[in-house]
Parts: sequence; structure tokens; C-alpha cells
Amino acid sequence: MTHLIEYQDASPEIRAVYDDIMATRKTDYINNLWKALANHPPTLRKTWEHVKSIMGEPGLIDPLTRELIYIAVSVTNNCQYCIGTHSAAARDKGMTDAMFGELLAIVGLANETNRLANGYNVPLDDRYR
Amino acid sequence: MTHLIEYQDASPEIRAVYDDIMATRKTDYINNLWKALANHPPTLRKTWEHVKSIMGEPGLIDPLTRELIYIAVSVTNNCQYCIGTHSAAARDKGMTDAMFGELLAIVGLANETNRLANGYNVPLDDRYR
Amino acid sequence: MTHLIEYQDASPEIRAVYDDIMATRKTDYINNLWKALANHPPTLRKTWEHVKSIMGEPGLIDPLTRELIYIAVSVTNNCQYCIGTHSAAARDKGMTDAMFGELLAIVGLANETNRLANGYNVPLDDRYR
Amino acid sequence: MTHLIEYQDASPEIRAVYDDIMATRKTDYINNLWKALANHPPTLRKTWEHVKSIMGEPGLIDPLTRELIYIAVSVTNNCQYCIGTHSAAARDKGMTDAMFGELLAIVGLANETNRLANGYNVPLDDRYR
Amino acid sequence: MTHLIEYQDASPEIRAVYDDIMATRKTDYINNLWKALANHPPTLRKTWEHVKSIMGEPGLIDPLTRELIYIAVSVTNNCQYCIGTHSAAARDKGMTDAMFGELLAIVGLANETNRLANGYNVPLDDRYR
Amino acid sequence: MTHLIEYQDASPEIRAVYDDIMATRKTDYINNLWKALANHPPTLRKTWEHVKSIMGEPGLIDPLTRELIYIAVSVTNNCQYCIGTHSAAARDKGMTDAMFGELLAIVGLANETNRLANGYNVPLDDRYR
Repeated sequence: MTHLIEYQDASPEIRAVYDDIMATRKTDYINNLWKALANHPPTLRKTWEHVKSIMGEPGLIDPLTRELIYIAVSVTNNCQYCIGTHSAAARDKGMTDAMFGELLAIVGLANETNRLANGYNVPLDDRYR
Repeated sequence: MTHLIEYQDASPEIRAVYDDIMATRKTDYINNLWKALANHPPTLRKTWEHVKSIMGEPGLIDPLTRELIYIAVSVTNNCQYCIGTHSAAARDKGMTDAMFGELLAIVGLANETNRLANGYNVPLDDRYR
Repeated sequence: MTHLIEYQDASPEIRAVYDDIMATRKTDYINNLWKALANHPPTLRKTWEHVKSIMGEPGLIDPLTRELIYIAVSVTNNCQYCIGTHSAAARDKGMTDAMFGELLAIVGLANETNRLANGYNVPLDDRYR
Repeated sequence: MTHLIEYQDASPEIRAVYDDIMATRKTDYINNLWKALANHPPTLRKTWEHVKSIMGEPGLIDPLTRELIYIAVSVTNNCQYCIGTHSAAARDKGMTDAMFGELLAIVGLANETNRLANGYNVPLDDRYR
Repeated sequence: MTHLIEYQDASPEIRAVYDDIMATRKTDYINNLWKALANHPPTLRKTWEHVKSIMGEPGLIDPLTRELIYIAVSVTNNCQYCIGTHSAAARDKGMTDAMFGELLAIVGLANETNRLANGYNVPLDDRYR
Repeated sequence: MTHLIEYQDASPEIRAVYDDIMATRKTDYINNLWKALANHPPTLRKTWEHVKSIMGEPGLIDPLTRELIYIAVSVTNNCQYCIGTHSAAARDKGMTDAMFGELLAIVGLANETNRLANGYNVPLDDRYR
């Protein structure tokens, strides 16, 4: 198992990222992912900046929908850590049990029909090109 | 390439599904996927009923968000047919170029962080269990 | 596109593999995959020996079922070349259109339920451990 | 971990599905997957009907082969729950240790050759189009 | 097909990224990927900065090895665009046909053994924890 | 969980492979993967011969780089067993924590850009064909 680097054991470079995470998310908790990435500070910093930019900046897709999209990918890839943390984030933003059930139904269906389309090697209809 | 079965060449069993697709979607166009699945009528019927039920029934996730989730899975799996047809459906429901760009940014990010979490084998935080 | 190495242009090392493929499969045709792998003769030789051993040796799973399993994986991974060539091989061994339709229905379903199980992170029942 | 809904705690809507599962499968045991899906009754019902139809109806592919195909997909996707439950189902239908070993050898091989074909971007032979 | 935005048709925001790509890579050519991402300028900018940082900064893994790793992932995911462009980049950095053949052999093998390990659900040896 | 076959319980056929693994790797330890594959001796033997040939023979790609490529695939596929054992092998060959961090950053990035390229369906530039 990966060594998780706690705040009190972190270098100033790592602490600067931890501080920004806590300030941005208005929390005093650092998720284990960041504590694992801290084993390689440049990856910690670049990943956090990328996540902060894509998930946190204002945009046309609302915060809850962003989380649903994130979970859809994570379920498809079977990333249990990502499903767990982003389900919690989605619940904070309003996802209910019933919405999660609907989400999984859609994710399952898309994974099914993806294979039907690929299996039959269906050519894209001219009108959608 | 898969043989596509057109309406005029279809058996009554297939036509019944085609008719329901056109009535449900208020269109006179049948996507190539259905014309390919018609090579095995039971799969055509079961798949359509499943899609109609999950994508078409009233629910807590709105129709545009359902399409965004569907595209997220299809991009992750590289199903070009599915990306093409559901991008068209999403545009019909209001997706703009900028929303598509945001969607892909989130899908790309989730695929990246999924691997960082799996690569470090990060344990799920107790608070999210 | 990959350069395909034809028999007449092949080195003796490559020809030896081509000859074995044709003798084993009782054909005078070499699939494009082998002509592509011939760009790196050791990979050509090792891959052929591996395929010949696993797909060709007598075993408990019959030849048609082996092809169905092979197609199931290839559809899941979206390898169009593999779906195309192994569908042909399966048809040679008795697969009908209806069987292919059933196969894809099962492959699609498994891809769907895989995500439902992963999405809910269902613990394996004690009785199946 | 997902909350599993037991029969005694289930609503009539959920019990109706549980009853049908037990009657169809001639057992008094409900797998954890269904108890997890019961958190969203419509997904429970739709998924069960879909599974029942595709895996249970008479067809051209025999029940054991259906399970082997199912396992092939689940191994490719790394769905441990699905591998565990369907390996048990396959053993009930006659799969031996040796057959499972052969199955995995084929699944592994297909995953390997899928990448060789995609990596070299091999064009499909005209004769297989 | 995605609309590709050429330099002469690009906004100042897009041109700034194109200019940085050309200056960083010491070329006057812009790959199609960037011309596609330019349909959503924020994704163009963020993606380029991320790629530039991870692939371009000095590090412990040499530039050719970085490309081999990139190709390994792209072959596993079947991203033909990525295989094509990064194979060209790898060749610029010294990859020969024989090295590409060895690379694919390793990628294929890893995809095979990944499934054998997952299929048998092999527990990690204590000594590697 | 899979039954692991120890040396003292192994048949002569299995012992012959175990002996070759230990002699080739200059160790007296057999990884759990081999003890699991021993449940089907032909798969054990074929897999070992394949691994030995591709990972062990002299080639143009050095042993450490081979391991990095192997890990890149295993992280993409989320094979925790493979990540664990090959990370240990890579460390034996010189991989440091910082190199592992760089490796994961590249693997994550490639998984991200793969989806951007596939999502926009970017056509391969003529110059790379």
C-alpha cells in the first residue's frame, strides 16, 4: 500500500498544495489521493492544478452534473477510489440514492450498447457526420 | 460491414420495433444501429425496450444530462458510432460546442485521475466508506 | 498504415512461420495480422506459436466455443480487426447470424452488469468465495 | 460499501422481483447484486428482466457457453464480483478447473492479440469484409 | 468529423497557444489534435499546458522512454490517433522498427497476464505489499 | 480466492516449471501468479515460456524500461496484482519513487489525451500516415 504523507510530515512544497486544496474546498480534510500523490510533489502539484481548473472553474456544466460525468467514467474504468470519493462529492451537491441508481442504469446501458455498436461495426449515419 | 435491414425489407417483427422507435422518437428516421441489430430480431427488440425504458422514462436526471453521461462512457470506450449519434442527440437537447468541450475535459480528467488513484492503489478514506 | 510483408518479399525466418501457418491451417492464405507482425520476426514467431498452442491444441473447450470467447473479448476491447477475422473463423466452424446476435446480446449484457456491480461495489457473497 | 436490502426489509415492489428471481432460478437465495440494485427499484426490475431474457430464454448458445462468454467479458473488465458469481454458475453447469484454465488462456490470448492488431493498425483482409 | 481550426482562422487566444506549441517544439506544424481542441479554447490551453509540463519538463525518465510509455497506454486503449502521432515522435527520438516490435510484444503480454492475474484473482504476495 | 499450489504439493509437470522460474530468475521464491496458474498446468507452462521469452531475452529495450511499459499497461487496466509485482521488479532494476511518480503522471496524461483525441474523433495528420 502506498505511503500516505500527512500534513505534519510534509515538506513546504507539499504543504503549499495541501493549503490550497483546503482553502479552495473550504475544508480542513485532505483526501488520501493527494497524500499518495505527495510521494512525487510535481505530480501532486500538476494534478491538483488540473483538477482545480477543470472541476472548479465556472462553466456551462453545473457542479453536480460534472460529478455525475466523473462517476460515469470511474464506474466504466472500475476505479473504486474514484467512485467512492466522487459519489460523496456528488451527494454533497445534491445527488440522492435514486439519482445514483438512475446514473448507474445509464452507465450500464451505455456500456452495453457500445458493444452492440462495435460488435456489428455499425457505420455512422450520414446525417450525424 | 454489417448488412443494414431497411424498413421495406424488414419482417413484421422488425417493423413493429421500427414503428415503435419512430413513434416514440417522433421521427421517420431509423438509426443504423437498429438496422444492424435487426439481423437478430430478439436482440433488436430487447435492446430497444431497454434503451426506451432507461433513456426515455421520466426520472430525476434530465434528458440532456442523460446524454452527457452516455457520451462520457462512449468516449471512454472509444465507440465512435455511439459518440456520433449521442452527440447529435445531445445537441438536439441543447448541448453547445462549449459544453461539449467542457464535457471532454472532464472525461479526460477522470480517465487521468482514475489511473493515478489505481496506480498508487490509494485506500478509500474512512469517511467515504 | 503498417507495411505488410508478402511471402515473396519475406526472409527465410519469416517464411518458416508463414509456411507453418499455412500447413497448420490447411490454407494458402496468410492473414494481414501475420504480415504486419513480420515487421518484427521474433514477435511474429512467438505470437504464432502462442496462438497455435492455445487455439489449436486439443482441449475441453470445442473450437467454435473458443472463437465465441475470442470474439467476446474483442468486442469488449473494440478490436475491429479481431472481430472481423474471428467472426469469419467462427462462421467456418458453424456460427450462424442468429448465434452471432445471441453472442453480442450476452457480451452487451455482461458489459452492462459489470458496471452495475462495480458501481455499487457489491461484495462477493460468502457462498461464492 | 453499498447497503444490501434483505427480503424482510424490502418493499412489495422489491419483493416481487426477489420472488421472480427465486422462482426462475429455483433457489431461495438472492445474490448480493440484486440486494444492492434494490436501492433503486426501477433499476432492479429492469436489470433482472434484461438478464432473465438474455441469459434464461432458450437459444442457440447453450447455458454453459453463455456463462463462459460472460466470464470472458468480466475478466477483461476486471469485475471481481461478476467473475466470482458467474464462475460459480458455470461450475454448476459443468465447468471444471481445467475448462476454467483453458478459458483464461483464451481470454488472455485475445487480450494480447487485440493489442498487436491495434498497435500495428492492421487493415482487415478483403476476404473478411 | 471535427472541424479543425487553422492558424489563419484562429482567435488571438487560440493563436497564443499555437505559437507556444510551435516555439516549444521548434516546428511550424500544428498537429490536428490541437486544431480540434481549439473548438473549445480553455480545453486547448489547459491540455497543452498539461502536456507541455509532463512530457516536456526535465525529469528522470528520458524522452524516448516517455514516448514508449505513452504508446503502451494508447495501444491498450486503442487510440489510433495517439498511436500514430506518438509513434512518429518516438521515431524522431530514436525508436526503430525492431524497438516498436519489442514494445508491442511487451504491451500484448502485459494485457494477457493482466487478465490471468485478474481471472484467478491472485492475492498480492506479502513480500510485495 | 484461488487455491495456490505450493512446491511440495505440485506434480512433476508443475515442478519443472517452478524449477525453471527459480533458475531463470536466480531466486528460490515463486510468485503467487504462478501458483494460481498451476491449477491448469498447460496454461502455467505456456504463460511462463511466453513471459520468459518476451521479458527475459536480450533485446533493444532495456530491462527497466520493459518493466515501466508493463506497469503502464497494468495501471491502465487496473490490475493491482500486476502493478504490485512489477513495481517491485522495477525497483530491483533501479526505479525510484520519483521515477514511479513520473511514470504515473505520463500514464495518467496518456489516458486523458486518448479520450480527447477519441472524443473529437481527430483524423490522423497526413504526415504521420
